[in-house]
Parts: sequence; C-alpha cells; structure tokens
Amino acid sequence: VPSSVDAAPPRMRADAARNRARLVAAAREVFTAAGDGAEVTMDAVAKRAGVGIGTLYRHFPTRLELMEAVYREDVDNLRAQAHALVDGQEPWQALAAWLEVFVKFAIDKRALFSELVNAIGKHSELISHSRGVLNEIVTELVANAQAAGVVRADVQAGDVLSLVGGCTMMNLDADQAKRVLRVILDGLHR
Amino acid sequence: VPSSVDAAPPRMRADAARNRARLVAAAREVFTAAGDGAEVTMDAVAKRAGVGIGTLYRHFPTRLELMEAVYREDVDNLRAQAHALVDGQEPWQALAAWLEVFVKFAIDKRALFSELVNAIGKHSELISHSRGVLNEIVTELVANAQAAGVVRADVQAGDVLSLVGGCTMMNLDADQAKRVLRVILDGLHR
Repeated sequence: VPSSVDAAPPRMRADAARNRARLVAAAREVFTAAGDGAEVTMDAVAKRAGVGIGTLYRHFPTRLELMEAVYREDVDNLRAQAHALVDGQEPWQALAAWLEVFVKFAIDKRALFSELVNAIGKHSELISHSRGVLNEIVTELVANAQAAGVVRADVQAGDVLSLVGGCTMMNLDADQAKRVLRVILDGLHR
Repeated sequence: VPSSVDAAPPRMRADAARNRARLVAAAREVFTAAGDGAEVTMDAVAKRAGVGIGTLYRHFPTRLELMEAVYREDVDNLRAQAHALVDGQEPWQALAAWLEVFVKFAIDKRALFSELVNAIGKHSELISHSRGVLNEIVTELVANAQAAGVVRADVQAGDVLSLVGGCTMMNLDADQAKRVLRVILDGLHR
C-alpha cells in the first residue's frame, strides 16, 4: 500500500480540521469585537479558541493568513446564504434579503477588509476570487428577479453592486444604511 | 492718503485678476485632458493660458496651489449651478438635474480629487469646505423637493450624498453612471 504525507490517521485529521475551524471562528469574533483589526494579537485568538499558541501558528504561520482565512470563509457564507435564499424565497425577497445581509457584512468588515486589501492588494487571488463570487451571487439574484418581472430590465448586476458597495464605503451608521438600502430597493423594483 | 501694500493701481489689479482666472481655466483644461494629473506640468499650463511661466509662479508658487484653486472654483460652480436650477426649475427637476451634473463632475475629477486629498488630507480647509458646500446644496435641493411632496420623506440629504458619492467611486463608465443615477432617482421619487 503506497503511503502519502497527506495521509494522517482519520482521527488526527478530523481533530486538525476541527481546530482549524475553531481558530477561524475565534479569529472572526476577536476581529469583529476589536473594530480595528490592528489591535488583534495571535495570543488573544488562541485564547478565545481554547488552543495553545503553537497550534495556532501551525495552522496560520502569520496573522495575515488568519485574516485571509476569515475573509474567505465570510465570502463562502455569503454564497451559502444566497443559495438558501434562492431556494427558499420568492425572487424579489431573495434579492432584498441578501442585499441587506451584504450591506451589514460590508459595514461590519470595513476595517478588516481595508487592512486586508492594503496588505495583499486588490488584484490578489483572494480579493479577485471574492469579487468574482459577489458578482456571481448578484448576477443570479438579479437575473431571477428580472425573469420574474420584479426588477427593472434596464439594470445590470454590476450596477447593483456599485450602488450597494459604493455607499457601504461612506461611513454609514446602521440607520443610514437601512434608509439608503430602502431607496436602492425601491429604485430597483418594478 | 494712507497707502497699503494691497493697493495696486486699478488697471494692474484687473490685469492680475484676469491672468489668474485665465490660469485657473487653463489648468482645468490641462488637468481634464491629462486624465492622470501627475502628467500635468506647470509649463503646459502657462503655455495653454498664454502667459509666461513667471506669471504662473507668481500666482501659484506650487502645482498643488494651482490644483486647489481649480477644485475650489469647481465647487463654486456646482453651487452656482444649484442656485440657477433652484431659481429656474421645479423642485424635482432641479434635484435630478443637479445630481446628474454632480455625478459627471465626480467621475471626471476622480483622479484629480484623489491626488488632492492624498496631498492635503480630507480634514484640510479646502476639503472640509467643499464637503460643507455639497452638503448645503443637497440639503436645499432635497428639502425643496420634500416640501413639494416629490421626494420621499424618510430620506436625508446625507443619504442622497452617500448614494451618489459612493457609486461615483466605483469606476463607473458614463453609461453605468446614467443607469445607476436613474435607479437612485426612481428610489427617491414619490
């Protein structure tokens, strides 16, 4: 039987995967609580995850790699939420609900996202990948809603992303974000 | 009769004012044509204005001061256009027409504005002043339109500025900008 360096005993691999997931979740909580990601230390993340600092560094040798993992999973979650809404809701409701989720996400993650883009660049694989996923999501949601006749036909997915993405960069508080999204949704609806 | 260093002969002062205005207008043309302001030289501006380089440096010792003068006059022009629209148009038409002017302005000046903010900071007198003027304009246009019952009551001037200002930072081309503004206007209208 050939062996491989990847072939750890099943029990170990499951443990490692569980630790990794726990570390990413802990990092997300610590980053969100900090507001400014610059204050977040690796120690605080290991402590929150309930693992030793050695385990943390084995999974994520640098703080940046940890931030990348958090952001990649965030974008996966946005996609999973979009699929759930497409499956479970009418096209208009799916679009409106997902845009609400996205606006909250973009506002909550503004500091983290800006630190990440400064560190890895907007043309990096992760940022390009995220842009691609967001574009796919909005393309599907808008196409469904247009096919159902509930979104104006003279609008494109990129327009919707510019409208929603643009205003999330304007330092809106939660109330303003709600009002602004209502204007956008009323403008899209037909 | 007391004398003052400011008291130049009337003829000289008129000449100086005319030269200054000509220099600012020439700089605006050269900056707009260049797209990227970094390529603009003082020589090119003096040449376009039809004055000697000495005259240019007497009015504007640095390239930055010239950029500031252009931007300050741009914002004055936006205010003058708003007043003309308020005086000459129905409230809805005034708001819609001014936002169209502003979107075109913000897209055309994106490179210049970003270079300017990087150089003098967003809390500088000029940028704060401009923000204040834009805020005043939109406050008046929105209040008029709300008083006339043609803009939804649950929106504030800052929301409109975030909506319009945000998406002008998203690298829209002219067609996208038109579509996006149409969505915003339909969302504001009632």
